[in-house]
Amino acid sequence: MDMEVGQVLHMNGGVGETSYANNSLVQQKVIAMTKPITEDAITKLYCSSYPVAIAIADLGCSSGPNTLFVVSELIKAVDSLRRKMSQKSPEYQVFLNDLPGNDFNTIFKSLPVFQNKLRKQLGTDSGPCFFTGVPGSFYGRLFKKNSLHFVHSSYSLQWLSQVPERLENNKGNIYMASTSPPDVLKAYYEQFQQDFSLFLKCRSEELVDGGRMVLTVLGRRNDDPSSKEGCYIWELLAMALNDMVLEGAIEEEKLNSFNIPQYTPSPVEVKYEVLKEGSFSIDRLEVTEVNWNAYQNETDLSDAFKDGGYNVAKCMRAVAEPLIVSHFGEAIVDQVFQRYREIIADRMSKEKTEFVNVIVSLIKA
Amino acid sequence: MDMEVGQVLHMNGGVGETSYANNSLVQQKVIAMTKPITEDAITKLYCSSYPVAIAIADLGCSSGPNTLFVVSELIKAVDSLRRKMSQKSPEYQVFLNDLPGNDFNTIFKSLPVFQNKLRKQLGTDSGPCFFTGVPGSFYGRLFKKNSLHFVHSSYSLQWLSQVPERLENNKGNIYMASTSPPDVLKAYYEQFQQDFSLFLKCRSEELVDGGRMVLTVLGRRNDDPSSKEGCYIWELLAMALNDMVLEGAIEEEKLNSFNIPQYTPSPVEVKYEVLKEGSFSIDRLEVTEVNWNAYQNETDLSDAFKDGGYNVAKCMRAVAEPLIVSHFGEAIVDQVFQRYREIIADRMSKEKTEFVNVIVSLIKA
Repeated sequence: MDMEVGQVLHMNGGVGETSYANNSLVQQKVIAMTKPITEDAITKLYCSSYPVAIAIADLGCSSGPNTLFVVSELIKAVDSLRRKMSQKSPEYQVFLNDLPGNDFNTIFKSLPVFQNKLRKQLGTDSGPCFFTGVPGSFYGRLFKKNSLHFVHSSYSLQWLSQVPERLENNKGNIYMASTSPPDVLKAYYEQFQQDFSLFLKCRSEELVDGGRMVLTVLGRRNDDPSSKEGCYIWELLAMALNDMVLEGAIEEEKLNSFNIPQYTPSPVEVKYEVLKEGSFSIDRLEVTEVNWNAYQNETDLSDAFKDGGYNVAKCMRAVAEPLIVSHFGEAIVDQVFQRYREIIADRMSKEKTEFVNVIVSLIKA
Repeated sequence: MDMEVGQVLHMNGGVGETSYANNSLVQQKVIAMTKPITEDAITKLYCSSYPVAIAIADLGCSSGPNTLFVVSELIKAVDSLRRKMSQKSPEYQVFLNDLPGNDFNTIFKSLPVFQNKLRKQLGTDSGPCFFTGVPGSFYGRLFKKNSLHFVHSSYSLQWLSQVPERLENNKGNIYMASTSPPDVLKAYYEQFQQDFSLFLKCRSEELVDGGRMVLTVLGRRNDDPSSKEGCYIWELLAMALNDMVLEGAIEEEKLNSFNIPQYTPSPVEVKYEVLKEGSFSIDRLEVTEVNWNAYQNETDLSDAFKDGGYNVAKCMRAVAEPLIVSHFGEAIVDQVFQRYREIIADRMSKEKTEFVNVIVSLIKA
């Protein structure tokens, strides 16, 4: 099952050819924001049973500066707890998951230095940490039954397993938008329900009883799926593409058949799927915001970094480029993102622009 | 522990920068030869307890056509058994291990097609197979305690964790040779003892009770470690390098400090270490031979493939090139292997040239 979904993902350019998440500064800020919730969850997990081995999976780990960060924070939190409780250190088994096209080689080559540093931070009486790479779509089983204690996923679950079917009426748009007809919104929502429910079912088989998950999903506060919160960043890309249609650089038909395989759910929608699927209880469900331009409050940055449009377009390009290339071809890419950057910069100078994060902390019932 | 050893391996160019094994036709033949022993071991394992999940590790998996072959044969063997015994299919967890510099990306990208094919061969009522990559040296812990049922390793364990120390007197040689002084042979043997013993200790912690290992090591029959069997292929490379010293293309000092981090043990030496370490009992211990030129008995081959010297030099180049480059630099490599090829071809035309394989099937006591 897991493989067919993974294949579909790749064939449809689901999340491009690379990985679920991108390792942007935005994501880094989101991880820092989520830290209290993640630490709360791992603390409750550890203190409920003092397991002799803890298996942690990061789903959609990508390959970059954030890849090993969350996992090392989790291990440090457990190590600090077990010292306070005078417990012998557990062994740590870390599973790093992303699609088969992710650059695992780069992660693996960085591991010896990372592991050395971690060992020094933890001290010699700490248990060994075993790192493994797990290629595959998380919309399918990835691990054997009852083998995981803790699952973490950040900025990956908003990606659908495929572009929803029946989006023919979404002309001129590339995602859900205020002008999308109801059947388009319905098709997107149903794909989300199907994918997220399958995700929960698979993880419930893999987690031990009492096991925990902390999921951070790009989402929205508003109940309306076509509200600006979740869709605006894609509407601006649609503007750039529509401009190019008007100029004849892109065929209208080509644009009409392009849709982003993403769904930015509300906390209510997340809660509804969790309750419906039935394997998990909700410990915490929270919503936070992060500015589009993660550098906004930083000082001492070069002018290039101060250009918010540049930063956001660069961050979005990492995510959207594989999708654009696979649908429209290589030739127009630079022009698309140049226009996108200008549009984003204009919008950011005129209004408050934020990503909304839905964070849910779950316990396997 | 595992990491320091891995780092030493890399710094010393232990097995080059890539992986333990190379995916040659020789290795493929050896895997086929070993199949009855491997199948016997997995049969005994499965039928002793009918586990609901089987964790299989391939240590030194490399990246090439042989990488997934052994594992798929093992899974097929279990599937055939469980059908005969009318048992429900177990879940399969496969750990593919090699050094962090191995090309895991290529393995992972080939997995969706491979898994699809395997699923078709096994049928829909078979349990899922989960594949993971485990980067690191097997001369250290790689897996959590009691987590493996079956360990396979082919043509990897002859590689030492590092070049032995105290080889200053091995002038003119690059490995153990008939002209090596006793202290050189002793240094090599002690490094083998230390490494193989550590390997057994680590695996005994990782395997469940009754778990099994089948190890195929490039070795020798003869008790004398400097006998031709294990050393000849490297003596011929030393001839090529010595010729280049005479011509001034390589500095004598440079050659004198070059030694291959390998040890080709006898079955007696393997048995001795297993008994001394004490965690495993020996089920089978066998020795086989395979011709240097694995193509020798094939028909319908192009002239290039019929050139035995070419084949063997190519196979050895894959193994030795990283070592040569890291010690002597890039510039002389082509010339070294051109000469090596000529020397090998000459020897093959005049005498029977074979690799010796020591195969041991072990049970965790």
